[in-house]
Amino acid sequence: MGEIYLDNSSTTMVCREAADKVMELMTNNYGNPSSLHTKGFYAEQELSAARQEIATLLGVQQEEIYFTSGGTESNNLAIFGAAHAMRRRGNHIVTTMIEHPSVINVMNQLEKEGFTVTYLKPDGSGNIQPEQVFRAVTPHTILVSMMCVNNEVGTLLPLEAVPAAIAAAKSPALFHVDAVQAFGKMPVKPGRLKVDLMSMSAHKIHGPKGVGALYLRKGVHLVPRTYGGGQEKNIRPGTESAPLIAGFGAAVRALPEPGAQLQEMARLSAYCRQRLTEIGGVTLNSPDGALPYIVNFSAGGVKAETMLHYLSAKEIYVSSGSACSKGKASHVLTAMGLPRERIASSLRLSFSRYNTFEDVDRLIDAINEGLSSLTKKP
Amino acid sequence: MGEIYLDNSSTTMVCREAADKVMELMTNNYGNPSSLHTKGFYAEQELSAARQEIATLLGVQQEEIYFTSGGTESNNLAIFGAAHAMRRRGNHIVTTMIEHPSVINVMNQLEKEGFTVTYLKPDGSGNIQPEQVFRAVTPHTILVSMMCVNNEVGTLLPLEAVPAAIAAAKSPALFHVDAVQAFGKMPVKPGRLKVDLMSMSAHKIHGPKGVGALYLRKGVHLVPRTYGGGQEKNIRPGTESAPLIAGFGAAVRALPEPGAQLQEMARLSAYCRQRLTEIGGVTLNSPDGALPYIVNFSAGGVKAETMLHYLSAKEIYVSSGSACSKGKASHVLTAMGLPRERIASSLRLSFSRYNTFEDVDRLIDAINEGLSSLTKKP
Repeated sequence: MGEIYLDNSSTTMVCREAADKVMELMTNNYGNPSSLHTKGFYAEQELSAARQEIATLLGVQQEEIYFTSGGTESNNLAIFGAAHAMRRRGNHIVTTMIEHPSVINVMNQLEKEGFTVTYLKPDGSGNIQPEQVFRAVTPHTILVSMMCVNNEVGTLLPLEAVPAAIAAAKSPALFHVDAVQAFGKMPVKPGRLKVDLMSMSAHKIHGPKGVGALYLRKGVHLVPRTYGGGQEKNIRPGTESAPLIAGFGAAVRALPEPGAQLQEMARLSAYCRQRLTEIGGVTLNSPDGALPYIVNFSAGGVKAETMLHYLSAKEIYVSSGSACSKGKASHVLTAMGLPRERIASSLRLSFSRYNTFEDVDRLIDAINEGLSSLTKKP
Repeated sequence: MGEIYLDNSSTTMVCREAADKVMELMTNNYGNPSSLHTKGFYAEQELSAARQEIATLLGVQQEEIYFTSGGTESNNLAIFGAAHAMRRRGNHIVTTMIEHPSVINVMNQLEKEGFTVTYLKPDGSGNIQPEQVFRAVTPHTILVSMMCVNNEVGTLLPLEAVPAAIAAAKSPALFHVDAVQAFGKMPVKPGRLKVDLMSMSAHKIHGPKGVGALYLRKGVHLVPRTYGGGQEKNIRPGTESAPLIAGFGAAVRALPEPGAQLQEMARLSAYCRQRLTEIGGVTLNSPDGALPYIVNFSAGGVKAETMLHYLSAKEIYVSSGSACSKGKASHVLTAMGLPRERIASSLRLSFSRYNTFEDVDRLIDAINEGLSSLTKKP
């Protein structure tokens, strides 16, 4: 029957275009971009091309894109870097309770350094209201960090409220967006959203694992986290992984036209949600209006890990919560105030452009079988 | 004629074994190592296998190896992490003037944070004497960071003096070794050398760019630089690049028997040094006893960049100083006290196991032609 991979928000298969590019730069054009000879020059050109590819998708300048080792590093660099650069202007930061651990755990660390952090709480459907942002931002706020799409339930966050709230409070705050789950799946334009810093990752969009990017608006000062040989204009030194960066560029180039792709995904997702709700005992945890790539649901009292392993044995791969919170109860569903048993049985499906309606049918059949075989145990 | 790559200390061609492994984990076994399903489990097993491969080469335990994005990140994590963890026990650090920028620039940063750093100065041949280490380490020293092999001239540093000097001074200091240029090329055993922390990089030994490792001796406490989803036991979070890590493991597995390889390299290097000294106006900058993989020389008053581009046009790729100090005068040769014109004309050859005696012959011919054509200009 073949496997069905429905864990694309954890990571994706590298697409052929990106994989071939990585291979080319590993074995043939393998120079160090900092080397002055032809082989170095060629690698440097590949970096530029990838930078331009990403800049074009975002509608920003090539010089505003910095490569990192992934979303976690981009988030750490953006948040620590902005907070430390803005330290003299205030000590208050605003974020949400449903950010990725690479944001929340940096915030916890900044609290230990003396910053005060306000964590906005979602409602029962995972949504955060614009009013909450307006109430939280003060003249002493130096940074607002908000994800674009929540990685566990797919909620879209009220990004457009942030610049307005900053202006209303006459705050000097910088605005950081963790766009790891949104980049390449929906339009995210730093210019239109008035974003100063934005984190992206290649491996969520069929690029390789081990490379990400940070958009840093021209003129915004950041304190680096790493010191070394001057690469990436000293913002992120270390020999650039030219193969991964070029592979990232190739993955972006291979993205389908975003509008059409999102509509197709909306149809697939709506079908999946419909079929799920027809199963007795299944409850959807992703709100209406969530990004269609992510469908979170609780499966009738069967422990998430049990169902996950049952499906895995049938070569259907899904996630319990996020891959990054292995074993722990989801902080997102907990913040939403869901009952404990619903959290314990929650599963996340996350689609890619390679998934089909047939994949959903096979998944639904398998869940039905699973519920019947796993709940009728003596 | 084909190209001759003599810039292997900048970066290397990824070997077939490593490239194939990267490809396999990008396109087939592409799971996230943190995912609980079979695809995640498989990726996790690949991480373990690579970790074991490196641990075996070093004679340490698998649990003491942490993966990073490369040598620069390993150095940053080790030095910041150790200094911050040891802050209460003293504020003095010992290093050398000839470390890589990812060590020196971290030290400069720590000085701004209030640490006092002693930089040991090499003699005219690039060597640092054990006595200098003994004189520098005090009871207030909390960290000694010393590279194993200098990346520009190949000098071997007196690592064995460090634990003795620490013991003699009754200092609590941790011992960090930047082994990026030594790992896989000569025996470096953290146990025998009494090293607490050691930095390594894959792309110097025919592994992929974008992955490195840190040896962290069991029981040594480190303050992390990055916060996130708990990967690498919270020492270095972020989705592990399973393809690159497995590729790193494959590159280590593909290393030839180290003793025999080093002897072969010594013959190649001695031949090259001999042929170079036969050229009028050429002076060797690498001392006797340097690691044979690196030969630094100054070419009779022709500016290094000029000769580098001349050779590059003949598809012979060498380096001026290190790739990481693009454009700047070498801080290593400057610390050695070499005259300015000798620094300005210095080139670095760095070999790999794929280089041959014929490569050296072609290089020597090209340098001779270059000297004659570039110096007879009106």
